[in-house]
Amino acid sequence: MMMTRVRSAVSSIIGGIMASGSSAQETHPDPPPRFPYSRPDFLALSPDEVECSADHISRPILILKETKLPWATGYAEVINAGKSTLNEDQACCEVVELRKRPADPSSPSYTPTRRRSSLPGTDILETIESTEVKELNFHYWALFDGHGGSGAAVFAAKFLHLHIEEQLQEVLEILQNPALQPPTCLGEDNPVHHLHPSAGCSQRGLSRAASLRGAAGAPGSPNTMAPRFFMEKKIKQESLVVGAVENAFKEMDAHIARERTGYSISGGCTALVVVYLLGKLYVANAGDSRALIVRGGEILPMSSSFTPESERQRLQFLAHLQPSLLGNDFTNLEFPRRVTKKEVGKRMLYRDFTMNGWAYKTVQEEDLKFPLVFGEGKKARVLATIGITRGLGDHDLKVHDSDIAIKPFLSCSPEVKIYNLPQFEHAADDVMILATDGLWDVLSNQEVAEAVSGFLGNCDPDDQHRYTMAAQDLVMKARGVLRDRGWRIAGDRLGSGDDISVFIIPLMHGNGQQPQPS
Amino acid sequence: MMMTRVRSAVSSIIGGIMASGSSAQETHPDPPPRFPYSRPDFLALSPDEVECSADHISRPILILKETKLPWATGYAEVINAGKSTLNEDQACCEVVELRKRPADPSSPSYTPTRRRSSLPGTDILETIESTEVKELNFHYWALFDGHGGSGAAVFAAKFLHLHIEEQLQEVLEILQNPALQPPTCLGEDNPVHHLHPSAGCSQRGLSRAASLRGAAGAPGSPNTMAPRFFMEKKIKQESLVVGAVENAFKEMDAHIARERTGYSISGGCTALVVVYLLGKLYVANAGDSRALIVRGGEILPMSSSFTPESERQRLQFLAHLQPSLLGNDFTNLEFPRRVTKKEVGKRMLYRDFTMNGWAYKTVQEEDLKFPLVFGEGKKARVLATIGITRGLGDHDLKVHDSDIAIKPFLSCSPEVKIYNLPQFEHAADDVMILATDGLWDVLSNQEVAEAVSGFLGNCDPDDQHRYTMAAQDLVMKARGVLRDRGWRIAGDRLGSGDDISVFIIPLMHGNGQQPQPS
Repeated sequence: MMMTRVRSAVSSIIGGIMASGSSAQETHPDPPPRFPYSRPDFLALSPDEVECSADHISRPILILKETKLPWATGYAEVINAGKSTLNEDQACCEVVELRKRPADPSSPSYTPTRRRSSLPGTDILETIESTEVKELNFHYWALFDGHGGSGAAVFAAKFLHLHIEEQLQEVLEILQNPALQPPTCLGEDNPVHHLHPSAGCSQRGLSRAASLRGAAGAPGSPNTMAPRFFMEKKIKQESLVVGAVENAFKEMDAHIARERTGYSISGGCTALVVVYLLGKLYVANAGDSRALIVRGGEILPMSSSFTPESERQRLQFLAHLQPSLLGNDFTNLEFPRRVTKKEVGKRMLYRDFTMNGWAYKTVQEEDLKFPLVFGEGKKARVLATIGITRGLGDHDLKVHDSDIAIKPFLSCSPEVKIYNLPQFEHAADDVMILATDGLWDVLSNQEVAEAVSGFLGNCDPDDQHRYTMAAQDLVMKARGVLRDRGWRIAGDRLGSGDDISVFIIPLMHGNGQQPQPS
Repeated sequence: MMMTRVRSAVSSIIGGIMASGSSAQETHPDPPPRFPYSRPDFLALSPDEVECSADHISRPILILKETKLPWATGYAEVINAGKSTLNEDQACCEVVELRKRPADPSSPSYTPTRRRSSLPGTDILETIESTEVKELNFHYWALFDGHGGSGAAVFAAKFLHLHIEEQLQEVLEILQNPALQPPTCLGEDNPVHHLHPSAGCSQRGLSRAASLRGAAGAPGSPNTMAPRFFMEKKIKQESLVVGAVENAFKEMDAHIARERTGYSISGGCTALVVVYLLGKLYVANAGDSRALIVRGGEILPMSSSFTPESERQRLQFLAHLQPSLLGNDFTNLEFPRRVTKKEVGKRMLYRDFTMNGWAYKTVQEEDLKFPLVFGEGKKARVLATIGITRGLGDHDLKVHDSDIAIKPFLSCSPEVKIYNLPQFEHAADDVMILATDGLWDVLSNQEVAEAVSGFLGNCDPDDQHRYTMAAQDLVMKARGVLRDRGWRIAGDRLGSGDDISVFIIPLMHGNGQQPQPS
């Protein structure tokens, strides 16, 4: 049964890619193929291997085999201990080329050309190095942690980088000229003309000329022609990339919403994405996966977690403004625990959307409703249903046995942090680690950093697979070993029973240094 | 004219305090006296001095005279260079005693007793040291920066500490027992009984006993009686203080709203408040004043600024959910500058409430409306009207020549940061600096820290007035000297034309160390 599903999945994936690659001018989006469950393309698993990987008893750790990922990135994963039939994590790693548009981008039938530089099973590094044309490309790593089914995670793993590509394509000509400050306004007829900083509809040229004649626009100045141009914000190029990634998440979410009318796209997923473009790493996170950089033993967190606890005030503020979203069943206020009927009239600790501290209030009948945000740590839930507050999908998720929709409380907007690679010297052991919450639930940032640094320090520096070996070591340390019917890790602690996926990205390669000779 | 107003102000202030002090049991709040303009009580200015202080040409720097503030706190201030007739900054410093309640707190006619430990012109340190009764008290420092009139700032300076007192009074018995974890629920009949951690309606005693019989409430456990008690959040005592301060700000704002129906309370104000209670400094900020600690030369920021730029996403989110708040005149989107009619149909940079980056959109007619958040730095405005987004008052503020209210976009909730004094050793030059934006507009944190450290290092350590002298030095460095019709500071930069108020609080005294012998 499972085998059948997996085989059709693989042929469907390849079919989908080929179709898109061979007919770049066709109207986008076509009704895309519905992707059944699979493991990440770059693992190049046989159907047998996919089936073996789903063994909840032995929980085999899957690693990259002969496939090389960009920058010699390492990867390892393991399935959960039974909480869902399938591994609901998904991963993607691509190098995506951005090319000049062949047609008028304002045309509704316009489709950006794209040439996929990575196909399952090919050596990506070779593909990139062999092309002599100097096109702008971006590197892309992504982890998706699904819930309530694997549909959204699988779908996002196939498409999110294409949405990012589409958004970046819009600003490609600006990005290709790094000295250029993004123009406030682009002419519709001739965008190239308006890219010149001293011309275009922003009229910065004019305001500059005016300023030569004195403090134009200043109070009391004789020149009253150009004052508003002094109020123009200067936008940096990197802000365009951040905006592109943010909007790509929105488009991805809307894409899932559209497609689900024709297909079943089950559940939702978190998304942790790294885009490397023009020397900078853009780390975009929506959910509770985590990215951190380990550089010379120092830990730099590169993401925040978005959970019912960390986003409590946003959720309460929304419910405060639109109380109908709570139906008749929930209260906007937070209490340290459920309020019982016999406590009506007594004084109980609470907090509302304006508070970080706690105070006492007299309990009303109204307060007996279930709190919008309830529980602590991994048990915290929004509307008693979901433990993360940002991500993709979940459009049809409702409170159990009710018509109350969860989606209005979820945000698909990532937080984007920027790391400027050339600003630092990187050694071979300096890495960025991306992992789903299965890892971070049982290992601290410090433990993860020490494990990776320790492991890499003991590796043969010529071994191209050491980052994958380090990822495998991390997954092993978090999963642990099966003992007395439970998974145990160092210090006799409980191992993670969740799906775990880990990328380890060596930062040295991003500086333009060559990979170590092998 | 000015003299008359000031004289009546002073007598009114003293009258108001005496009335409240002599009749502690009367129903609160009485219609309070409306406070006309004045300078801080602790400056103990004569009417002549108040008048001289308002000279916009000479801008004399006012400092503490013989009055001693708690911990030998230093203070200095200066009026603006003409942007408003009066100095719209206000300040307050008090030691407030918390006493056990004489009556049932749930009674609506209940009034907390309060004994004011500081009256204008008295020596506060002496007052405190002479009282042998071991009552709980809190120290209080506050700066208010008014706008659109001095009413709200004057009113808040008279009352905010009393609102904090009232909120803290509610939890006094809990705070008096530092080992006690705040009970989730207080019984109405017998609050003392319920303060015992192993009893009371929170039933923690019950759940503890249950847990002795095994992992009660865990899945598969035979004991199904007490599972919900495992979900009870543990609230720390300091969270009660934070909640008390947060709610006191709300009460203060509602107090202004109520009183303005009978009196004129002009404008609004920011509020920066420090409460010292049981070893901890609670720094609450709503607006763009700033607190920082300088310890051993290191700078620790103790507040964030709340401005149209820092709160853009909150404001846009609100407008997105309740677009009617924008009337027909404003747009929710941000653009780098005003959009002009001829740009309709072109592509322009924008961002919405979900974005930190920027992207291009096709300009619509709708986008010609004025942006909700507009301008950069000190020129940034909400609804083209106000440059700060948190504070007290402003209940009647409207967009010029329109019915669009500003208040829904303003928050009166402070952000509260905590500094645990006993955790650190403090030297005599370690201080907390509080100042209104007039200081920080022209001096960086680094410049301020170096100026204060440098100044204190050159002082006679026995001089009780050195913190006031350091505050005076700071105000001087920010105001500068009048040259060629303009105020100039070091490096030939423009001096601050704004009101400037500065507290310098030595941290050594908070550790229980005695003030240096004088």
